[in-house]
Amino acid sequence: MNIHTDKVGIIGSGSWATAIAKMLLENVSEINWFFRKESTIKQFKKNKHNPRYLDEVEFDISRINFYKDVTRLVKESDILIMVVPSAYLPDILSEIKTDISDKYILSGIKGIVTDKNLLVAQYLHTDFNVPYENLGVLAGPCHAEEVAREKLSYLTVAAIDEQQAAKFAYLVQCDYIFTTLSDDIWGTEYAAVLKNIIAIAAGIAHGLRYGDNFHAVLISRAIQEMKRFVDTVHPIHRDIKSPAYLGDLLVTSYSQFSRNRTFGTMIGKGYSVKAAQLELNMVAEGYYASKSIHKINEKYKVNMPITETVYKILYDKVPPARAFTQLTKKLR
Amino acid sequence: MNIHTDKVGIIGSGSWATAIAKMLLENVSEINWFFRKESTIKQFKKNKHNPRYLDEVEFDISRINFYKDVTRLVKESDILIMVVPSAYLPDILSEIKTDISDKYILSGIKGIVTDKNLLVAQYLHTDFNVPYENLGVLAGPCHAEEVAREKLSYLTVAAIDEQQAAKFAYLVQCDYIFTTLSDDIWGTEYAAVLKNIIAIAAGIAHGLRYGDNFHAVLISRAIQEMKRFVDTVHPIHRDIKSPAYLGDLLVTSYSQFSRNRTFGTMIGKGYSVKAAQLELNMVAEGYYASKSIHKINEKYKVNMPITETVYKILYDKVPPARAFTQLTKKLR
Repeated sequence: MNIHTDKVGIIGSGSWATAIAKMLLENVSEINWFFRKESTIKQFKKNKHNPRYLDEVEFDISRINFYKDVTRLVKESDILIMVVPSAYLPDILSEIKTDISDKYILSGIKGIVTDKNLLVAQYLHTDFNVPYENLGVLAGPCHAEEVAREKLSYLTVAAIDEQQAAKFAYLVQCDYIFTTLSDDIWGTEYAAVLKNIIAIAAGIAHGLRYGDNFHAVLISRAIQEMKRFVDTVHPIHRDIKSPAYLGDLLVTSYSQFSRNRTFGTMIGKGYSVKAAQLELNMVAEGYYASKSIHKINEKYKVNMPITETVYKILYDKVPPARAFTQLTKKLR
Repeated sequence: MNIHTDKVGIIGSGSWATAIAKMLLENVSEINWFFRKESTIKQFKKNKHNPRYLDEVEFDISRINFYKDVTRLVKESDILIMVVPSAYLPDILSEIKTDISDKYILSGIKGIVTDKNLLVAQYLHTDFNVPYENLGVLAGPCHAEEVAREKLSYLTVAAIDEQQAAKFAYLVQCDYIFTTLSDDIWGTEYAAVLKNIIAIAAGIAHGLRYGDNFHAVLISRAIQEMKRFVDTVHPIHRDIKSPAYLGDLLVTSYSQFSRNRTFGTMIGKGYSVKAAQLELNMVAEGYYASKSIHKINEKYKVNMPITETVYKILYDKVPPARAFTQLTKKLR
């Protein structure tokens, strides 16, 4: 990978993708960017911002090559930044009618490929033959909205080789984005997945009218639970208190704007899963993640009371109040 | 210590003292309680609540023995609960004209005795000959306001012997207060002291308009810093992610109501220390703690960039914006 000459393409058009596009353009002269609809591209060009997300970020559109054909974008790019909801990843990859196994791929996806219970890096490696050496993971803690406003944020860039992580990091770091390197793609991805489930738990507690004291205990126990799981599934040395793990959990579970937390709050208040999804007009990633982690943990059997409580409420229809009364005794 | 027959006396009348009184009365038939002013006692008896703090908590005053003479209260009590601001502790102890070395003392004080740079337990042991075996420390995460509303909260009770911790715990635990035992009085006290300094740092960052992304990184790095310090000063096995350490830090540094955080916010916005203190009409405990920890750390030389940054801003008059620009580079 040559950071000075390789062409970078973004697959994804949401707020996080838009924030990443902004960072990239601090470092490379031009980017390729995929949008499904011609009309979105037209509007973007006319108004000089993404019509639907982070519209306060103005782009120099002469530096963006827009593509509505994802296969063409892939062919024209050496480095791919994947930033779509994990639920849509298999579909978008199936649309790509060219080999991606020689690409460098940086994933900004925070989720799990639920059909297969695979992390994004595992999935790209297993199903698309992308070598692990070519893969990177971009982790928070990071609200896209704060990147838009150029508020100082720290990203962790993980790859199995830190030299490779440094190359990916070069693409995103700038005045307001500081990067930390990591060799822990598994742990970083699992942490990003688990934090969405924990944010649902935090929301349920809030919906059930537990207070801030309880929330602080829940998060303390959650990071311990996360450490147990990640250290079992992928036992390498890591400090779970680092920003990529604990920080990411904090920014999500303390945010009023987290979709997962909001979803949880509705569940706690008595909405059914279906009603909450309809009302929010979207699916919280933690909902699917909960099922995947439950499945994966059938093998590892890590003690995960918080994650299991969320699973029981969402999938076994255990009433939230009862499930949480039981959980409270396990958090002592 | 006999939890069934020993008499319990509270020294302190603020919101945390009032919350503790409420918990105690769930477990013992009556309590002794010290108030400096006769008029406060009269008003308390008349209105059945503490006139100045947590006035929503109604007390059965027939179960409270009020004392305006602290020496008499001490003589009439076997177990003392000390819940005064640490800055006032030496004064109140000098008022007690009787030996306290045979008392059991549970400290709800979250601070350091600044003249001496001693933790409360150390101070009671060193200056008043109270055996360590008789001492306990009550730690959060816990807003008194949530205890008043009987929202489920978890307290950690630390003593050098967990059997003794269990006896203290018996006095406060109830339906809405779950307790965890610990043998780490030093670590628990230091964590409670450090979290106030970190809350000031969080406030300063907020005042300087850093965002949530930065805050999450700050807190992640802060718990790592806390671990380095506590493990150096008192090296026993502990999990710093437990509620007594991490949870207490979270509840304070994410609270809009924390006095330390509010104080920090004003400093970040450009108020002088004196102006902030005048405006808030009180002194944030973290202000004094910052000096004490700086002094204590001259011996241990632990790498503490966040705590040191707060010290430099508060005592060396380094402009907050400049100090934080330097700090941001150390948090990568």
